[in-house]
Amino acid sequence: MTFPHPRALAFDVFGTVVDWRGSIIREGEAFGHERGLKVDWAGLADAWRAGYQPAMARVRSGELPWIRIDDLHRMILESLLPRFGLSALSEPDRVHLNRVWHRLDPWPDTVEGLSRLKRRHVIVTLSNGNVSLLTAMAKRAGLPWDCIFSAETFHHYKPDPETYLGVASLLDLAPAEVMMVAAHKDDLRSARRCGLRTAFVRRPLEFGPGSNPDREPEEGLDVVADDFLDLARQLGA
Amino acid sequence: MTFPHPRALAFDVFGTVVDWRGSIIREGEAFGHERGLKVDWAGLADAWRAGYQPAMARVRSGELPWIRIDDLHRMILESLLPRFGLSALSEPDRVHLNRVWHRLDPWPDTVEGLSRLKRRHVIVTLSNGNVSLLTAMAKRAGLPWDCIFSAETFHHYKPDPETYLGVASLLDLAPAEVMMVAAHKDDLRSARRCGLRTAFVRRPLEFGPGSNPDREPEEGLDVVADDFLDLARQLGA
Repeated sequence: MTFPHPRALAFDVFGTVVDWRGSIIREGEAFGHERGLKVDWAGLADAWRAGYQPAMARVRSGELPWIRIDDLHRMILESLLPRFGLSALSEPDRVHLNRVWHRLDPWPDTVEGLSRLKRRHVIVTLSNGNVSLLTAMAKRAGLPWDCIFSAETFHHYKPDPETYLGVASLLDLAPAEVMMVAAHKDDLRSARRCGLRTAFVRRPLEFGPGSNPDREPEEGLDVVADDFLDLARQLGA
Repeated sequence: MTFPHPRALAFDVFGTVVDWRGSIIREGEAFGHERGLKVDWAGLADAWRAGYQPAMARVRSGELPWIRIDDLHRMILESLLPRFGLSALSEPDRVHLNRVWHRLDPWPDTVEGLSRLKRRHVIVTLSNGNVSLLTAMAKRAGLPWDCIFSAETFHHYKPDPETYLGVASLLDLAPAEVMMVAAHKDDLRSARRCGLRTAFVRRPLEFGPGSNPDREPEEGLDVVADDFLDLARQLGA
């Protein structure tokens, strides 16, 4: 590395820290089995996730007021239920299913990697997930965050600059002392424009075994890592 | 207990979780010794803490803009240096001394008590300390918070209702599902007025061995405990 060690690492969560797609499919299959439902859970997971950027755009444009991701997820889920043969789902089942985003499983290297990185760095979330979601997820999965920051903390979703700069400000650090860690280059490019350091972590399975996500290094990325253990190695942690 | 178990416990920090007075005296004495200074560190600690409510009142009244506690502490420290023979202190020494509030030691029961309470409850801070202070303190002292909430999160100091209600809202809980834990009855009375449950934890040494703080139960307190282990016992954790 040709730059000073970052004081804090801010982690994107969905896809970078946890396997949202695999978790929704696993839990969905068990949920459907108990209720005798046959559902394309992979299709539902993908459509649910795909609905997320357009829903945030409606908040960003002012069409919708500020709304936490739990409520965005519910809104998208409601629109998808008929297509996936789930229109008859009871209200408690809808609430439960929507909360699957609180129960996502970490990637196999996540907990060990974070624990190692925590020794030398302040490790925090910077996710569009709401605070209660991130808190519940961390508690269930054993994610050892030093602090949880969310779009909800700033009333701005990523990639708005208020989120990246807000984390630096709340940690009383200069932007260049914070490194954004994500599996998504658009997130990292936005962080970089705010002066943060960036680490790209490859998560080739985020969109499923058949997908072919971008794994290439690109100019402007400070670190490119295969997982959190590799990131820890590269940061000397 | 005659009420449902609280889902989350929100802890006051200075005095309740950490021993600010003893820590400042211990660190001050080592600091003075290295520099050949004789200072009344107990007096400085008490005066520093006593300056805190009036300084917050100036922010609350609008006389000062929103300001984090690190900066309030520095402002008060500056006003006290001449009285304690510390006017010659260098700028780096002033910065270092002011940060003693990031390095406060927990009470002997704190870490074990919190770890036990964390098993069944979401445990969070609700402190006037700023986010970076609370994060650094937790990391150094091993305080296993699920989430850190600060006056800075809400741009309101306790006992403003925005703080107590803000914690409940960010955790997506009703106020009655949150229990405020503090060694100070005024904090608990304000929390109770917002609908939170309350636990009073006696910290007889907060103001030093010669002091005589209020240890009596009072109507409206849901739990009165001798320390965090006793609190854990009473909550069945």
